[in-house]
Amino acid sequence: MSTLQDLVRPELRGQTPYGAPQLDVPVAVNTNESSYPVPQVVVDQITRDVMAVAASLNRYPDREFVRLRELLATYLQGTTGEPVTAGQVWAANGSNEVLQHIVQAFGGAGRTALGFTPSYSMHPLISGRNGTTWVDGLRDADPERFDLDGDLAVEQTLRHDPELIFLCSPNNPTGTALDLDVVKRIYDATDRAIVVVDEAYTEFSRPGTPSAVSLLPGRDRLVVSRTMSKAFAFAGARLGYLAAATEFTDLLRLVRLPYHLSSVTQAVACAALEHTEPMLAMVEQIKATRDELVAGCTELGLRPVPSDANFVLVGGFADAGATWQALLDRGVLVRDVGIPHHLRITAGTPDENHAVLQALRAVVEGEQA
Amino acid sequence: MSTLQDLVRPELRGQTPYGAPQLDVPVAVNTNESSYPVPQVVVDQITRDVMAVAASLNRYPDREFVRLRELLATYLQGTTGEPVTAGQVWAANGSNEVLQHIVQAFGGAGRTALGFTPSYSMHPLISGRNGTTWVDGLRDADPERFDLDGDLAVEQTLRHDPELIFLCSPNNPTGTALDLDVVKRIYDATDRAIVVVDEAYTEFSRPGTPSAVSLLPGRDRLVVSRTMSKAFAFAGARLGYLAAATEFTDLLRLVRLPYHLSSVTQAVACAALEHTEPMLAMVEQIKATRDELVAGCTELGLRPVPSDANFVLVGGFADAGATWQALLDRGVLVRDVGIPHHLRITAGTPDENHAVLQALRAVVEGEQA
Repeated sequence: MSTLQDLVRPELRGQTPYGAPQLDVPVAVNTNESSYPVPQVVVDQITRDVMAVAASLNRYPDREFVRLRELLATYLQGTTGEPVTAGQVWAANGSNEVLQHIVQAFGGAGRTALGFTPSYSMHPLISGRNGTTWVDGLRDADPERFDLDGDLAVEQTLRHDPELIFLCSPNNPTGTALDLDVVKRIYDATDRAIVVVDEAYTEFSRPGTPSAVSLLPGRDRLVVSRTMSKAFAFAGARLGYLAAATEFTDLLRLVRLPYHLSSVTQAVACAALEHTEPMLAMVEQIKATRDELVAGCTELGLRPVPSDANFVLVGGFADAGATWQALLDRGVLVRDVGIPHHLRITAGTPDENHAVLQALRAVVEGEQA
Repeated sequence: MSTLQDLVRPELRGQTPYGAPQLDVPVAVNTNESSYPVPQVVVDQITRDVMAVAASLNRYPDREFVRLRELLATYLQGTTGEPVTAGQVWAANGSNEVLQHIVQAFGGAGRTALGFTPSYSMHPLISGRNGTTWVDGLRDADPERFDLDGDLAVEQTLRHDPELIFLCSPNNPTGTALDLDVVKRIYDATDRAIVVVDEAYTEFSRPGTPSAVSLLPGRDRLVVSRTMSKAFAFAGARLGYLAAATEFTDLLRLVRLPYHLSSVTQAVACAALEHTEPMLAMVEQIKATRDELVAGCTELGLRPVPSDANFVLVGGFADAGATWQALLDRGVLVRDVGIPHHLRITAGTPDENHAVLQALRAVVEGEQA
């Protein structure tokens, strides 16, 4: 007699679910959340707007989420200076679902997705779960260098000729933004791949880092995905989105589940987008804290990777797993992303950052003792 | 140069998105929503609970939605009288996403799903979008009979030997519930198929219709899916769920996108589940209205199919498409589900029902004139 383990898709057998531990610790800096609560003015707006839609929840939501798309387009246009229409915008329950829509429309069995590791670990998972063959590309011939090498990326694109290419800028978990020339070169190296630039952390980029949104005109295979989870401090609301050609978002309507965005999710996201200034008010503070984290780690003799995100990948640990546990023992939860000698640490509040650096100092000095 | 239409998955080319028209008409009885607003006591609870979680939306939601699972288990246990634990319950953004999780875990390329047409049209769509081959089974050798014939179902199960079987009770769009003996026979006819009983409309069943939840003990390949969209009058909140073996729900954690249920969705659904009595208060009224709709249609010389749902499939139209348009011209939006000579009509309020029957009378008498 078959057990459920026998019946599940072969590639899932014996796997464990994705996800960082959700532990109750004094300093949780492991999932790149914002440590700052949603501002009161937005809490008030959310409360009012949810109350207004609650009575009519007997009706299905606006399947095309028209107002949300308009507000997202306005935000993108305002921050990038590029023309973005509501029709170019798509949204779903988190950027993971946005990415899944792309894979369901353009990937599938017999098709290949290429990414450059280490990068966001959901890219291969979403591709695989939807039947797409994943190719783990190299970022650089030297595994200690995390910037994406343009020549190598083009060579791998030509060699694998994938249907989907995932880029990530700033790259998670390494932290640095991608030169747009590399995006252009990869795009031009193929005439059939959908090129996704995952910009989940883009609002934290250092000055002078343009968004790939500026590359959209004339490139109908290019997609820029975003999220409200990070800079917007809105991880609990689950709202991811993308910008692409209108023809592209039209095709995603074929694979989205009908009414995928609830009336409440639409109302809550719209409330936040009506207050982008207070929602993004802590971004500059977080960038300053991140730079302090980089400086503090350097001072401890560690090797932080330059970061355009709200986190820092820190190298130089003799045994990253042991350090992860030692930090947890001190009440500090960071992320072991599986890169030898490295740990990823979110920039929290100044107090949290201080606690992180103090714990790191104790552990590093203990190691040397 | 390739266009996006060339690059999309072949089976999507030239397709149009799923979905009933969202038209602004006086009487919309086309999507089996409840016509009754969410009760004020629940609106108040939703408002309070969303206000309470709004400030902490900077943090990710409880990935395992523990409290929601507990409340759903309590509801199932209370209404079916069967023991159901929180671990046996799973939930997602609408029952479509619940079904997609099942297909992603147990379907995929090279695997087959069997359903019995006409039934819920998302079953083949979700299967196909996720790479699973769909087999359109017959309900009865006579296409005018909509009850599922047990012998024929078993024979088709043996012949196609699918990995997934979709049943629907009460069946959408035909309206009648399934005899549990048929479910048992289909389950026993295979030792490898996951058997899904979609009970989206079960709360509207006529007396003496047990839920397939009663069949769960000892059947670890059986799944009963449900939704809060219909009897709970909560379509806008997007909350679908299922009950199955704990081992089964554990496997779904491998395919769900992390944090797929937002903190707000969890809070809103929990608020409703704390008030199941007022939320379900209109179910008896809707059943009475449905029975009036059946009687009224019979009186008009039409052929309504017996219904355990909040809608009635009505046969006897010379040209269903023409009648659909004629009703719309009178401000009544019903659903043309593609069954010749039939239209599906939701039981709304008594006033809406009166308007529907009046419009039907005018159209039917016009046809005969």
